[in-house]
Amino acid sequence: MAASPLPGAVKIVEVGPRDGLQNEKEFVPTQVKIELIDRLTQAGFANIEAASFVSPKWVPQMADGAQVMDGIARRAGTIYSALTPNLRGFEGALAARVDEIVIFGAASEAFSQKNINCSIAESIERFAPVAQAAKANGVRIRGSVSCSLGCPYQGEVPVESVVDVVQRFAALGCDEIDIADTIGVGTAKRVHEVFEAVTKVFPRERLSGHFHDTYGQALANIYAALEQGIAIFHASVAGLGGCPYAKGATGNVATEDVLYLMNGLGIHTGVDLDQVVAAGDFISRAIGRNNVSRAGKALLAKQQSAAACA
Amino acid sequence: MAASPLPGAVKIVEVGPRDGLQNEKEFVPTQVKIELIDRLTQAGFANIEAASFVSPKWVPQMADGAQVMDGIARRAGTIYSALTPNLRGFEGALAARVDEIVIFGAASEAFSQKNINCSIAESIERFAPVAQAAKANGVRIRGSVSCSLGCPYQGEVPVESVVDVVQRFAALGCDEIDIADTIGVGTAKRVHEVFEAVTKVFPRERLSGHFHDTYGQALANIYAALEQGIAIFHASVAGLGGCPYAKGATGNVATEDVLYLMNGLGIHTGVDLDQVVAAGDFISRAIGRNNVSRAGKALLAKQQSAAACA
Repeated sequence: MAASPLPGAVKIVEVGPRDGLQNEKEFVPTQVKIELIDRLTQAGFANIEAASFVSPKWVPQMADGAQVMDGIARRAGTIYSALTPNLRGFEGALAARVDEIVIFGAASEAFSQKNINCSIAESIERFAPVAQAAKANGVRIRGSVSCSLGCPYQGEVPVESVVDVVQRFAALGCDEIDIADTIGVGTAKRVHEVFEAVTKVFPRERLSGHFHDTYGQALANIYAALEQGIAIFHASVAGLGGCPYAKGATGNVATEDVLYLMNGLGIHTGVDLDQVVAAGDFISRAIGRNNVSRAGKALLAKQQSAAACA
Repeated sequence: MAASPLPGAVKIVEVGPRDGLQNEKEFVPTQVKIELIDRLTQAGFANIEAASFVSPKWVPQMADGAQVMDGIARRAGTIYSALTPNLRGFEGALAARVDEIVIFGAASEAFSQKNINCSIAESIERFAPVAQAAKANGVRIRGSVSCSLGCPYQGEVPVESVVDVVQRFAALGCDEIDIADTIGVGTAKRVHEVFEAVTKVFPRERLSGHFHDTYGQALANIYAALEQGIAIFHASVAGLGGCPYAKGATGNVATEDVLYLMNGLGIHTGVDLDQVVAAGDFISRAIGRNNVSRAGKALLAKQQSAAACA
């Protein structure tokens, strides 16, 4: 058993509407995105990654960020986040009354060079004006450290690189920082090593675990992180989103599976699992995609057999 | 982190050829079963659940147990196990030179009554002659405690019921006892409670964890059990086998995902992951079934993209 008790409550950040749907090939209609976010709001999430204010040339799937933010029914207390790669994106997010902006950088030098053609340090410096503008306007800032547990190009990522990016984000004034396993290669031991190191330079309660289930490890990783007192986790309803580095493989961990774990551990989430299962069924049908949440599929199967017996 | 270090080595019991294939609707040809077991033997498993000596009226999928045992290429040191519900089954297993027989009972009274129309106590007493015959013939005995973490009929299963069945199996002389989450409903907290209780009445090093991934919890459960020093785990290549209580849901945890975890934790298994991935691809194609191992799918996708680039 863990040396210290697990957290009594956690925040689950639902990333399906942005991180998940961004990976869909077909454009998802704005009205479908809005209904998904509204269902997730009603299910009780305190934080939903709702949109991306990036150039539609880069990410056409997210071109309707302003309309989505305008159409959703917000709940007081819920934080609606959006990705903002530059000042122009920040201005769009500000106009759309986004509560939190997300900036990002890789812990892998090879990934940074290959994806955005600059060093890790340069990539994060470029966010300085965005971070300043967010601070000036009282908008929360979240920093996402991709490839924290491994990289599709260089393989191993040194723990020191993760710590370095966390420190750079902290210097920009990030309120929250995500340790993201972008390709799902990490296991519980590495999770432990990385959080052990980053909690020395940034407050534990403002660090989150963003795990992918590509190798089936996400829930074991979350459990290992819980044992270290990490209490913010990202998840995607119905497991929306794939892995761009392994076609057909799984991407973000499914929210339903994470909630099932937290419920079993007696950890408060404030989120209603049944409503999330229904939201996962809704979006999977709406976009014609397999629901890859194991708990979601099992709970839907049970509902159907109960309905058949009634 | 765990209070005590994780085991340095574990035994993975590969149950796909029996527990997995038994759940397939179509009869799998004997030659395919033999090739699967041979591939798993070559991959390095120390224990493979290979056959079932039950009435072909009950389980037609396993009617060819004797032919399978006769056809496989055994490796010295590998234990080939088979299910034996009665003396007749035991005689078949003995004739087929099975190394270990498996007897079974539920920790749920409702499950026992509904499935075999007798009490838990009666169901296990019926195995007494089988256990005596096994002892007399120097054959290992494994006892499997189904519904250890929950029951499809009564829901909650008291920890005391699991302890009671473990004690009954111990009294019959079982060499190894499985704590089986037959419907995959357990989470890490319950795993901890159950192992804490059963390790007081049976040696830790002869207890195994048999987890299903129906709600996505299996790897987190294995990790929690590892932290308690449990060092034997069951898994099914390609996630063979489903959940008879939730149609379309996942069954046994996939061996590839378990091996990926152990490799990441630096825990010795003696099994070659790449060969298991290939065996999982072989059987999935041979029986026209989706490979549900996440690690298996990701590793196959990487191989294919590497082959395409070569």
